Amino acid sequence: MLKAWLFTLGNEVVQGRVVNTNATYLGRRLFLLGFDVQGNISLIDEVNLVAKYLKIVLSDKPSIIVTSGGLGPTYDDRTLEAVAKASERSLRLDEEALRMIEEKYAVRNMPMTEERVKMAYLPEGAVPIPNPVGTAPGSWLKVGETVIVSLPGVPRELEAMWEGWVEPRIRESFNLKVRLAERIFRVVGVPESSAAKIVKDVLKRYSNVYIKTHPKGHEVLGPVLDVYVLASGGSSEEAGKVADEVVAELVKALTSLGGRITEKPE
Amino acid sequence: MLKAWLFTLGNEVVQGRVVNTNATYLGRRLFLLGFDVQGNISLIDEVNLVAKYLKIVLSDKPSIIVTSGGLGPTYDDRTLEAVAKASERSLRLDEEALRMIEEKYAVRNMPMTEERVKMAYLPEGAVPIPNPVGTAPGSWLKVGETVIVSLPGVPRELEAMWEGWVEPRIRESFNLKVRLAERIFRVVGVPESSAAKIVKDVLKRYSNVYIKTHPKGHEVLGPVLDVYVLASGGSSEEAGKVADEVVAELVKALTSLGGRITEKPE
Repeated sequence: MLKAWLFTLGNEVVQGRVVNTNATYLGRRLFLLGFDVQGNISLIDEVNLVAKYLKIVLSDKPSIIVTSGGLGPTYDDRTLEAVAKASERSLRLDEEALRMIEEKYAVRNMPMTEERVKMAYLPEGAVPIPNPVGTAPGSWLKVGETVIVSLPGVPRELEAMWEGWVEPRIRESFNLKVRLAERIFRVVGVPESSAAKIVKDVLKRYSNVYIKTHPKGHEVLGPVLDVYVLASGGSSEEAGKVADEVVAELVKALTSLGGRITEKPE
Repeated sequence: MLKAWLFTLGNEVVQGRVVNTNATYLGRRLFLLGFDVQGNISLIDEVNLVAKYLKIVLSDKPSIIVTSGGLGPTYDDRTLEAVAKASERSLRLDEEALRMIEEKYAVRNMPMTEERVKMAYLPEGAVPIPNPVGTAPGSWLKVGETVIVSLPGVPRELEAMWEGWVEPRIRESFNLKVRLAERIFRVVGVPESSAAKIVKDVLKRYSNVYIKTHPKGHEVLGPVLDVYVLASGGSSEEAGKVADEVVAELVKALTSLGGRITEKPE
Protein backbone atom coordinates (compact mmCIF):
# COMPACT_ATOMS: atom_id res chain seq x y z
CA MET A 1 0.00 0.00 0.00
CA LEU A 2 1.14 3.53 -0.73
CA LYS A 3 2.18 5.32 2.44
CA ALA A 4 1.36 9.00 2.92
CA TRP A 5 2.37 11.58 5.55
CA LEU A 6 1.16 15.09 6.28
CA PHE A 7 3.04 18.08 7.66
CA THR A 8 0.68 20.88 8.72
CA LEU A 9 2.91 23.76 9.70
CA GLY A 10 2.48 26.99 11.62
CA ASN A 11 2.52 28.40 15.14
CA GLU A 12 -1.21 29.13 15.01
CA VAL A 13 -1.99 25.44 14.49
CA VAL A 14 0.41 24.09 17.12
CA GLN A 15 -0.58 26.64 19.75
CA GLY A 16 -4.26 25.92 19.19
CA ARG A 17 -5.20 29.33 17.84
CA VAL A 18 -7.00 27.68 14.91
CA VAL A 19 -8.46 24.22 14.43
CA ASN A 20 -6.36 22.15 12.03
CA THR A 21 -8.91 21.61 9.28
CA ASN A 22 -6.17 21.17 6.65
CA ALA A 23 -5.07 17.95 8.35
CA THR A 24 -8.65 16.66 8.26
CA TYR A 25 -9.13 17.63 4.62
CA LEU A 26 -5.83 16.23 3.34
CA GLY A 27 -6.07 13.08 5.47
CA ARG A 28 -9.53 12.35 4.14
CA ARG A 29 -8.66 13.06 0.49
CA LEU A 30 -5.56 10.85 0.59
CA PHE A 31 -7.45 8.10 2.43
CA LEU A 32 -10.22 8.16 -0.19
CA LEU A 33 -7.61 7.92 -2.95
CA GLY A 34 -6.44 4.69 -1.31
CA PHE A 35 -3.31 5.89 0.51
CA ASP A 36 -2.26 4.44 3.85
CA VAL A 37 -2.06 7.75 5.72
CA GLN A 38 0.37 7.08 8.57
CA GLY A 39 0.50 10.38 10.38
CA ASN A 40 0.29 14.14 10.50
CA ILE A 41 3.06 16.22 12.04
CA SER A 42 2.28 19.81 13.01
CA LEU A 43 5.29 21.96 13.87
CA ILE A 44 5.98 25.56 14.77
CA ASP A 45 7.70 27.76 12.17
CA GLU A 46 11.30 26.68 12.74
CA VAL A 47 13.25 25.64 9.67
CA ASN A 48 15.57 23.25 11.46
CA LEU A 49 12.79 21.53 13.35
CA VAL A 50 10.71 21.08 10.20
CA ALA A 51 13.73 19.84 8.23
CA LYS A 52 14.59 17.37 11.00
CA TYR A 53 11.17 15.71 11.01
CA LEU A 54 10.87 15.80 7.21
CA LYS A 55 14.17 13.94 7.04
CA ILE A 56 13.01 11.30 9.53
CA VAL A 57 9.80 10.68 7.57
CA LEU A 58 11.66 10.74 4.22
CA SER A 59 14.01 8.03 5.45
CA ASP A 60 10.97 5.75 5.72
CA LYS A 61 10.44 6.24 1.93
CA PRO A 62 6.70 6.99 1.88
CA SER A 63 5.07 7.51 -1.53
CA ILE A 64 3.97 11.01 -0.72
CA ILE A 65 4.44 13.78 1.83
CA VAL A 66 2.07 16.74 1.72
CA THR A 67 2.97 19.93 3.58
CA SER A 68 0.64 22.85 4.26
CA GLY A 69 1.60 26.33 5.40
CA GLY A 70 4.68 28.53 5.27
CA LEU A 71 4.78 29.44 1.56
CA GLY A 72 3.93 33.14 1.83
CA PRO A 73 6.04 36.29 1.53
CA THR A 74 6.87 36.84 5.21
CA TYR A 75 10.05 36.05 7.08
CA ASP A 76 8.55 33.07 8.92
CA ASP A 77 7.30 31.39 5.71
CA ARG A 78 10.19 28.99 5.30
CA THR A 79 8.69 25.60 4.49
CA LEU A 80 10.44 25.26 1.13
CA GLU A 81 13.75 26.04 2.80
CA ALA A 82 13.05 23.14 5.16
CA VAL A 83 12.07 20.88 2.23
CA ALA A 84 15.29 21.83 0.42
CA LYS A 85 17.34 21.17 3.56
CA ALA A 86 15.72 17.79 4.23
CA SER A 87 16.22 16.68 0.62
CA GLU A 88 19.74 18.12 0.38
CA ARG A 89 18.99 20.47 -2.45
CA SER A 90 19.34 24.21 -2.81
CA LEU A 91 16.58 26.73 -3.40
CA ARG A 92 16.72 28.43 -6.78
CA LEU A 93 14.61 31.06 -8.51
CA ASP A 94 12.04 29.24 -10.63
CA GLU A 95 11.19 31.24 -13.77
CA GLU A 96 7.72 29.75 -14.16
CA ALA A 97 6.85 30.41 -10.51
CA LEU A 98 8.13 33.98 -10.89
CA ARG A 99 5.93 34.49 -13.94
CA MET A 100 2.87 33.18 -12.02
CA ILE A 101 3.51 35.62 -9.18
CA GLU A 102 4.24 38.57 -11.50
CA GLU A 103 0.94 38.02 -13.28
CA LYS A 104 -0.98 38.12 -9.99
CA TYR A 105 0.51 41.45 -8.97
CA ALA A 106 0.44 42.96 -12.50
CA VAL A 107 -3.36 42.55 -12.59
CA ARG A 108 -3.56 44.69 -9.47
CA ASN A 109 -0.90 47.12 -10.73
CA MET A 110 1.38 46.21 -7.85
CA PRO A 111 5.17 46.12 -8.21
CA MET A 112 7.32 43.07 -7.46
CA THR A 113 9.21 43.38 -4.19
CA GLU A 114 11.90 41.25 -2.60
CA GLU A 115 9.24 39.52 -0.46
CA ARG A 116 7.14 38.69 -3.51
CA VAL A 117 10.11 37.39 -5.51
CA LYS A 118 10.94 35.19 -2.49
CA MET A 119 7.84 33.11 -3.20
CA ALA A 120 9.38 32.01 -6.53
CA TYR A 121 12.30 30.23 -4.88
CA LEU A 122 11.67 26.49 -5.09
CA PRO A 123 13.87 23.48 -4.26
CA GLU A 124 16.00 22.38 -7.23
CA GLY A 125 14.00 20.11 -9.51
CA ALA A 126 10.57 21.20 -8.20
CA VAL A 127 7.59 21.95 -10.43
CA PRO A 128 5.55 25.02 -9.37
CA ILE A 129 1.85 24.44 -8.64
CA PRO A 130 -0.43 27.24 -9.82
CA ASN A 131 -2.49 28.98 -7.11
CA PRO A 132 -5.82 30.10 -8.62
CA VAL A 133 -6.98 31.77 -5.38
CA GLY A 134 -3.93 33.40 -3.73
CA THR A 135 -0.43 34.36 -4.82
CA ALA A 136 2.08 31.81 -3.48
CA PRO A 137 2.65 28.89 -5.89
CA GLY A 138 2.98 25.41 -4.45
CA SER A 139 5.79 22.94 -5.10
CA TRP A 140 5.83 19.36 -6.46
CA LEU A 141 9.19 17.72 -5.84
CA LYS A 142 10.35 14.16 -6.45
CA VAL A 143 12.94 13.06 -3.86
CA GLY A 144 14.06 9.49 -4.43
CA GLU A 145 10.89 7.40 -4.22
CA THR A 146 8.88 10.12 -2.52
CA VAL A 147 6.87 13.02 -3.91
CA ILE A 148 6.83 16.07 -1.62
CA VAL A 149 3.85 18.34 -2.33
CA SER A 150 3.92 21.74 -0.62
CA LEU A 151 0.77 23.87 -0.45
CA PRO A 152 -0.16 27.14 1.27
CA GLY A 153 -1.95 27.02 4.63
CA VAL A 154 -5.03 29.06 3.68
CA PRO A 155 -7.72 26.37 3.33
CA ARG A 156 -9.40 27.97 0.28
CA GLU A 157 -6.09 28.08 -1.58
CA LEU A 158 -4.99 24.63 -0.48
CA GLU A 159 -8.29 23.02 -1.49
CA ALA A 160 -8.43 24.71 -4.89
CA MET A 161 -4.86 23.67 -5.67
CA TRP A 162 -5.47 20.14 -4.42
CA GLU A 163 -8.59 19.58 -6.47
CA GLY A 164 -7.50 21.45 -9.59
CA TRP A 165 -3.89 20.33 -9.94
CA VAL A 166 -2.48 18.03 -7.25
CA GLU A 167 -5.06 15.24 -7.15
CA PRO A 168 -5.17 14.73 -10.94
CA ARG A 169 -1.36 14.61 -10.98
CA ILE A 170 -1.26 12.13 -8.08
CA ARG A 171 -3.79 9.94 -9.87
CA GLU A 172 -1.58 9.92 -12.95
CA SER A 173 1.79 9.55 -11.20
CA PHE A 174 0.68 6.64 -9.04
CA ASN A 175 -1.62 5.20 -11.69
CA LEU A 176 -4.52 5.11 -9.20
CA LYS A 177 -7.59 3.15 -10.18
CA VAL A 178 -9.89 4.48 -7.49
CA ARG A 179 -12.60 6.86 -8.68
CA LEU A 180 -14.38 9.62 -6.74
CA ALA A 181 -17.90 10.97 -7.08
CA GLU A 182 -19.15 14.21 -5.56
CA ARG A 183 -22.61 15.53 -4.82
CA ILE A 184 -23.73 18.88 -3.43
CA PHE A 185 -27.13 19.90 -2.13
CA ARG A 186 -28.58 22.67 -0.02
CA VAL A 187 -30.81 22.31 3.02
CA VAL A 188 -32.78 25.13 4.62
CA GLY A 189 -34.06 25.11 8.20
CA VAL A 190 -31.62 22.80 9.99
CA PRO A 191 -28.90 24.35 12.18
CA GLU A 192 -25.37 23.11 11.54
CA SER A 193 -25.08 21.63 15.03
CA SER A 194 -28.10 19.36 14.40
CA ALA A 195 -26.80 18.44 10.94
CA ALA A 196 -23.44 17.56 12.50
CA LYS A 197 -25.03 14.74 14.48
CA ILE A 198 -26.64 13.28 11.37
CA VAL A 199 -23.39 13.53 9.41
CA LYS A 200 -21.47 11.81 12.19
CA ASP A 201 -23.97 8.99 12.24
CA VAL A 202 -23.78 8.45 8.47
CA LEU A 203 -19.96 8.57 8.52
CA LYS A 204 -19.94 5.75 11.06
CA ARG A 205 -21.64 3.48 8.55
CA TYR A 206 -19.72 4.46 5.39
CA SER A 207 -15.94 4.14 5.43
CA ASN A 208 -15.22 5.63 1.99
CA VAL A 209 -17.03 8.91 2.26
CA TYR A 210 -16.16 12.51 3.10
CA ILE A 211 -18.96 14.89 4.10
CA LYS A 212 -18.63 18.58 4.76
CA THR A 213 -21.29 21.14 5.64
CA HIS A 214 -20.85 24.81 4.80
CA PRO A 215 -23.18 27.20 6.66
CA LYS A 216 -24.34 29.93 4.32
CA GLY A 217 -25.52 32.52 6.82
CA HIS A 218 -28.69 33.05 8.77
CA GLU A 219 -31.47 33.93 6.34
CA VAL A 220 -35.06 34.85 7.13
CA LEU A 221 -36.09 31.33 6.18
CA GLY A 222 -33.80 29.79 8.80
CA PRO A 223 -30.26 28.47 8.63
CA VAL A 224 -28.93 27.47 5.20
CA LEU A 225 -26.37 24.70 4.78
CA ASP A 226 -24.60 23.47 1.69
CA VAL A 227 -23.76 19.80 2.09
CA TYR A 228 -20.83 18.34 0.15
CA VAL A 229 -20.46 14.57 -0.25
CA LEU A 230 -17.41 12.84 -1.71
CA ALA A 231 -17.34 9.06 -2.13
CA SER A 232 -14.70 6.70 -3.47
CA GLY A 233 -15.02 3.38 -5.26
CA GLY A 234 -13.34 1.02 -7.71
CA SER A 235 -15.23 2.61 -10.62
CA SER A 236 -17.11 5.84 -11.28
CA GLU A 237 -20.38 3.90 -11.13
CA GLU A 238 -19.58 2.37 -7.76
CA ALA A 239 -18.46 5.70 -6.30
CA GLY A 240 -21.58 7.38 -7.72
CA LYS A 241 -23.82 4.72 -6.21
CA VAL A 242 -22.31 5.21 -2.74
CA ALA A 243 -22.57 9.01 -3.07
CA ASP A 244 -26.25 8.75 -4.06
CA GLU A 245 -27.00 6.41 -1.16
CA VAL A 246 -25.34 8.77 1.30
CA VAL A 247 -27.20 11.77 -0.11
CA ALA A 248 -30.49 9.87 0.18
CA GLU A 249 -29.78 9.03 3.84
CA LEU A 250 -28.77 12.58 4.66
CA VAL A 251 -31.82 14.03 2.91
CA LYS A 252 -34.13 11.65 4.75
CA ALA A 253 -32.67 12.51 8.16
CA LEU A 254 -32.50 16.25 7.46
CA THR A 255 -36.09 16.48 6.19
CA SER A 256 -37.31 14.52 9.22
CA LEU A 257 -35.88 17.41 11.30
CA GLY A 258 -37.94 19.87 9.27
CA GLY A 259 -35.26 20.66 6.70
CA ARG A 260 -36.21 21.66 3.16
CA ILE A 261 -33.92 20.54 0.31
CA THR A 262 -33.46 23.15 -2.40
CA GLU A 263 -31.66 23.46 -5.73
CA LYS A 264 -28.05 22.49 -5.96
CA PRO A 265 -26.03 25.60 -5.08
CA GLU A 266 -24.01 27.16 -7.89
CA MET B 1 11.42 27.96 28.20
CA LEU B 2 9.62 24.69 28.96
CA LYS B 3 9.15 22.69 25.79
CA ALA B 4 5.95 20.70 25.24
CA TRP B 5 4.87 18.16 22.61
CA LEU B 6 1.53 16.57 21.79
CA PHE B 7 0.71 13.12 20.42
CA THR B 8 -2.91 12.87 19.28
CA LEU B 9 -3.40 9.26 18.32
CA GLY B 10 -5.96 7.30 16.34
CA ASN B 11 -6.85 6.25 12.81
CA GLU B 12 -9.98 8.40 12.83
CA VAL B 13 -7.88 11.54 13.37
CA VAL B 14 -5.14 10.73 10.83
CA GLN B 15 -7.60 9.62 8.14
CA GLY B 16 -9.67 12.78 8.59
CA ARG B 17 -12.79 11.10 9.86
CA VAL B 18 -12.95 13.58 12.76
CA VAL B 19 -11.49 17.04 13.25
CA ASN B 20 -8.61 16.99 15.73
CA THR B 21 -10.07 19.25 18.42
CA ASN B 22 -7.93 17.60 21.13
CA ALA B 23 -4.79 19.03 19.50
CA THR B 24 -6.35 22.50 19.51
CA TYR B 25 -7.50 22.21 23.12
CA LEU B 26 -4.23 20.83 24.51
CA GLY B 27 -2.07 23.16 22.41
CA ARG B 28 -4.00 26.17 23.66
CA ARG B 29 -4.01 25.10 27.32
CA LEU B 30 -0.26 24.41 27.33
CA PHE B 31 0.45 27.66 25.48
CA LEU B 32 -1.60 29.63 28.01
CA LEU B 33 0.33 27.97 30.86
CA GLY B 34 3.51 29.37 29.30
CA PHE B 35 4.87 26.25 27.56
CA ASP B 36 6.74 26.47 24.26
CA VAL B 37 4.55 24.00 22.36
CA GLN B 38 6.81 22.68 19.59
CA GLY B 39 4.58 20.28 17.74
CA ASN B 40 1.74 17.80 17.57
CA ILE B 41 2.21 14.36 16.08
CA SER B 42 -0.90 12.40 15.04
CA LEU B 43 -0.33 8.75 14.25
CA ILE B 44 -2.41 5.72 13.32
CA ASP B 45 -2.90 2.99 15.94
CA GLU B 46 0.41 1.15 15.49
CA VAL B 47 2.41 0.52 18.64
CA ASN B 48 5.82 0.48 16.95
CA LEU B 49 5.17 3.66 14.99
CA VAL B 50 3.96 5.50 18.09
CA ALA B 51 6.89 4.21 20.16
CA LYS B 52 9.35 5.28 17.44
CA TYR B 53 8.17 8.89 17.36
CA LEU B 54 7.78 9.08 21.14
CA LYS B 55 11.41 8.00 21.42
CA ILE B 56 12.57 10.64 18.95
CA VAL B 57 10.73 13.39 20.82
CA LEU B 58 11.87 12.06 24.22
CA SER B 59 15.50 12.25 23.10
CA ASP B 60 15.03 16.01 22.75
CA LYS B 61 14.19 16.09 26.50
CA PRO B 62 11.05 18.26 26.46
CA SER B 63 9.46 19.14 29.82
CA ILE B 64 6.20 17.48 28.93
CA ILE B 65 4.62 15.18 26.35
CA VAL B 66 0.83 14.83 26.36
CA THR B 67 -0.78 11.95 24.48
CA SER B 68 -4.47 11.59 23.69
CA GLY B 69 -6.30 8.47 22.54
CA GLY B 70 -5.72 4.73 22.73
CA LEU B 71 -6.45 4.08 26.42
CA GLY B 72 -9.68 2.11 26.07
CA PRO B 73 -10.50 -1.59 26.42
CA THR B 74 -10.21 -2.62 22.74
CA TYR B 75 -7.35 -4.39 21.00
CA ASP B 76 -6.20 -1.27 19.15
CA ASP B 77 -5.97 0.85 22.32
CA ARG B 78 -2.24 0.44 22.85
CA THR B 79 -0.87 3.87 23.67
CA LEU B 80 0.49 2.89 27.09
CA GLU B 81 2.26 -0.05 25.50
CA ALA B 82 3.95 2.45 23.17
CA VAL B 83 4.81 4.76 26.08
CA ALA B 84 6.31 1.80 27.97
CA LYS B 85 8.29 0.75 24.92
CA ALA B 86 9.61 4.26 24.25
CA SER B 87 10.66 4.70 27.88
CA GLU B 88 12.06 1.19 28.21
CA ARG B 89 9.75 0.12 30.99
CA SER B 90 7.31 -2.70 31.31
CA LEU B 91 3.56 -2.48 31.78
CA ARG B 92 2.32 -3.69 35.14
CA LEU B 93 -1.07 -3.98 36.77
CA ASP B 94 -1.62 -0.85 38.83
CA GLU B 95 -3.74 -1.58 41.93
CA GLU B 96 -5.08 1.95 42.22
CA ALA B 97 -6.06 2.06 38.54
CA LEU B 98 -7.76 -1.32 38.92
CA ARG B 99 -9.74 -0.04 41.89
CA MET B 100 -10.86 3.03 39.89
CA ILE B 101 -12.09 0.84 37.04
CA GLU B 102 -13.78 -1.70 39.33
CA GLU B 103 -15.73 1.08 41.02
CA LYS B 104 -17.03 2.34 37.66
CA TYR B 105 -18.37 -1.07 36.66
CA ALA B 106 -19.61 -1.99 40.15
CA VAL B 107 -21.96 1.01 40.13
CA ARG B 108 -23.54 -0.37 36.98
CA ASN B 109 -23.48 -3.95 38.28
CA MET B 110 -21.15 -5.00 35.48
CA PRO B 111 -18.46 -7.64 35.97
CA MET B 112 -14.76 -7.08 35.33
CA THR B 113 -13.56 -8.71 32.11
CA GLU B 114 -10.10 -9.18 30.63
CA GLU B 115 -10.64 -6.10 28.44
CA ARG B 116 -11.60 -3.99 31.46
CA VAL B 117 -8.66 -5.17 33.54
CA LYS B 118 -6.41 -4.31 30.57
CA MET B 119 -7.08 -0.61 31.23
CA ALA B 120 -5.33 -0.93 34.61
CA TYR B 121 -1.96 -1.81 33.08
CA LEU B 122 0.28 1.25 33.32
CA PRO B 123 3.98 1.73 32.59
CA GLU B 124 6.16 1.01 35.65
CA GLY B 125 6.33 4.07 37.89
CA ALA B 126 3.23 5.74 36.47
CA VAL B 127 0.55 7.39 38.60
CA PRO B 128 -3.04 6.72 37.43
CA ILE B 129 -5.16 9.78 36.61
CA PRO B 130 -8.82 9.49 37.68
CA ASN B 131 -11.40 9.73 34.91
CA PRO B 132 -14.59 11.35 36.29
CA VAL B 133 -16.47 10.98 32.99
CA GLY B 134 -15.49 7.65 31.41
CA THR B 135 -13.78 4.47 32.57
CA ALA B 136 -10.15 4.42 31.35
CA PRO B 137 -7.74 6.07 33.82
CA GLY B 138 -4.96 8.23 32.43
CA SER B 139 -1.25 7.93 33.21
CA TRP B 140 1.30 10.41 34.60
CA LEU B 141 4.85 9.12 34.11
CA LYS B 142 8.18 10.77 34.79
CA VAL B 143 10.84 9.63 32.30
CA GLY B 144 14.17 11.32 32.93
CA GLU B 145 13.49 15.05 32.66
CA THR B 146 10.18 14.57 30.88
CA VAL B 147 6.66 14.03 32.17
CA ILE B 148 4.51 11.92 29.84
CA VAL B 149 0.80 12.48 30.44
CA SER B 150 -1.55 10.05 28.68
CA LEU B 151 -5.26 10.84 28.39
CA PRO B 152 -8.22 9.21 26.60
CA GLY B 153 -9.27 10.55 23.20
CA VAL B 154 -12.90 11.35 24.04
CA PRO B 155 -12.84 15.15 24.33
CA ARG B 156 -15.24 15.30 27.33
CA GLU B 157 -13.09 12.87 29.28
CA LEU B 158 -9.81 14.45 28.24
CA GLU B 159 -10.97 17.96 29.17
CA ALA B 160 -12.38 16.93 32.54
CA MET B 161 -9.17 15.10 33.45
CA TRP B 162 -7.02 17.97 32.22
CA GLU B 163 -8.85 20.61 34.19
CA GLY B 164 -9.52 18.59 37.33
CA TRP B 165 -6.22 16.78 37.79
CA VAL B 166 -3.51 17.32 35.17
CA GLU B 167 -3.30 21.10 35.03
CA PRO B 168 -3.11 21.59 38.83
CA ARG B 169 -0.38 18.94 38.98
CA ILE B 170 1.56 20.55 36.11
CA ARG B 171 1.31 23.92 37.86
CA GLU B 172 2.77 22.38 41.00
CA SER B 173 5.43 20.19 39.35
CA PHE B 174 6.80 22.98 37.20
CA ASN B 175 6.17 25.68 39.78
CA LEU B 176 4.31 27.78 37.22
CA LYS B 177 3.61 31.40 38.09
CA VAL B 178 1.12 32.09 35.33
CA ARG B 179 -2.49 32.41 36.44
CA LEU B 180 -5.65 31.70 34.45
CA ALA B 181 -9.09 33.26 34.71
CA GLU B 182 -12.25 31.86 33.17
CA ARG B 183 -15.63 33.35 32.37
CA ILE B 184 -18.77 31.76 30.95
CA PHE B 185 -21.87 33.40 29.59
CA ARG B 186 -24.83 32.43 27.44
CA VAL B 187 -26.09 34.22 24.35
CA VAL B 188 -29.46 33.58 22.72
CA GLY B 189 -30.30 34.42 19.11
CA VAL B 190 -26.91 34.31 17.36
CA PRO B 191 -26.07 31.23 15.25
CA GLU B 192 -22.70 29.64 15.96
CA SER B 193 -21.39 30.41 12.48
CA SER B 194 -21.94 34.16 13.03
CA ALA B 195 -20.41 33.96 16.50
CA ALA B 196 -17.38 32.16 15.02
CA LYS B 197 -16.48 35.25 12.99
CA ILE B 198 -16.62 37.47 16.08
CA VAL B 199 -14.54 35.03 18.11
CA LYS B 200 -11.91 34.83 15.36
CA ASP B 201 -11.68 38.59 15.24
CA VAL B 202 -11.22 38.91 19.02
CA LEU B 203 -8.61 36.12 19.07
CA LYS B 204 -6.57 38.04 16.52
CA ARG B 205 -6.18 40.89 18.99
CA TYR B 206 -5.58 38.90 22.18
CA SER B 207 -2.68 36.46 22.25
CA ASN B 208 -3.28 34.96 25.70
CA VAL B 209 -6.87 33.92 25.38
CA TYR B 210 -8.81 30.76 24.56
CA ILE B 211 -12.45 31.05 23.52
CA LYS B 212 -14.84 28.20 22.85
CA THR B 213 -18.53 28.26 21.94
CA HIS B 214 -20.81 25.37 22.80
CA PRO B 215 -24.13 25.27 20.89
CA LYS B 216 -26.93 24.23 23.24
CA GLY B 217 -29.53 23.13 20.72
CA HIS B 218 -32.12 24.95 18.67
CA GLU B 219 -34.69 26.36 21.05
CA VAL B 220 -37.90 28.21 20.19
CA LEU B 221 -36.17 31.45 21.13
CA GLY B 222 -33.44 30.90 18.54
CA PRO B 223 -29.98 29.36 18.76
CA VAL B 224 -28.40 29.20 22.23
CA LEU B 225 -24.63 29.36 22.69
CA ASP B 226 -22.54 29.04 25.82
CA VAL B 227 -19.36 31.03 25.44
CA TYR B 228 -16.29 30.01 27.44
CA VAL B 229 -13.36 32.43 27.84
CA LEU B 230 -10.01 31.51 29.36
CA ALA B 231 -7.26 34.12 29.76
CA SER B 232 -3.75 33.92 31.17
CA GLY B 233 -1.64 36.52 32.95
CA GLY B 234 1.18 37.01 35.43
CA SER B 235 -1.33 37.31 38.30
CA SER B 236 -4.95 36.40 38.92
CA GLU B 237 -5.85 40.08 38.68
CA GLU B 238 -4.15 40.50 35.32
CA ALA B 239 -5.73 37.34 33.89
CA GLY B 240 -9.13 38.41 35.24
CA LYS B 241 -8.81 41.83 33.66
CA VAL B 242 -8.04 40.36 30.24
CA ALA B 243 -10.93 37.87 30.57
CA ASP B 244 -13.34 40.68 31.47
CA GLU B 245 -12.17 42.81 28.55
CA VAL B 246 -12.64 39.92 26.13
CA VAL B 247 -16.10 39.15 27.51
CA ALA B 248 -17.07 42.82 27.14
CA GLU B 249 -15.92 42.83 23.51
CA LEU B 250 -17.73 39.59 22.72
CA VAL B 251 -20.94 40.77 24.40
CA LYS B 252 -20.85 44.04 22.49
CA ALA B 253 -20.38 42.35 19.13
CA LEU B 254 -22.93 39.59 19.84
CA THR B 255 -25.64 42.01 21.03
CA SER B 256 -25.08 44.19 17.96
CA LEU B 257 -26.09 41.10 15.94
CA GLY B 258 -29.32 40.86 17.94
CA GLY B 259 -28.02 38.43 20.56
CA ARG B 260 -29.43 38.49 24.08
CA ILE B 261 -27.08 37.73 26.98
CA THR B 262 -28.62 35.59 29.72
CA GLU B 263 -27.62 34.14 33.05
CA LYS B 264 -24.37 32.28 33.39
CA PRO B 265 -25.13 28.63 32.54
CA GLU B 266 -24.90 26.15 35.40
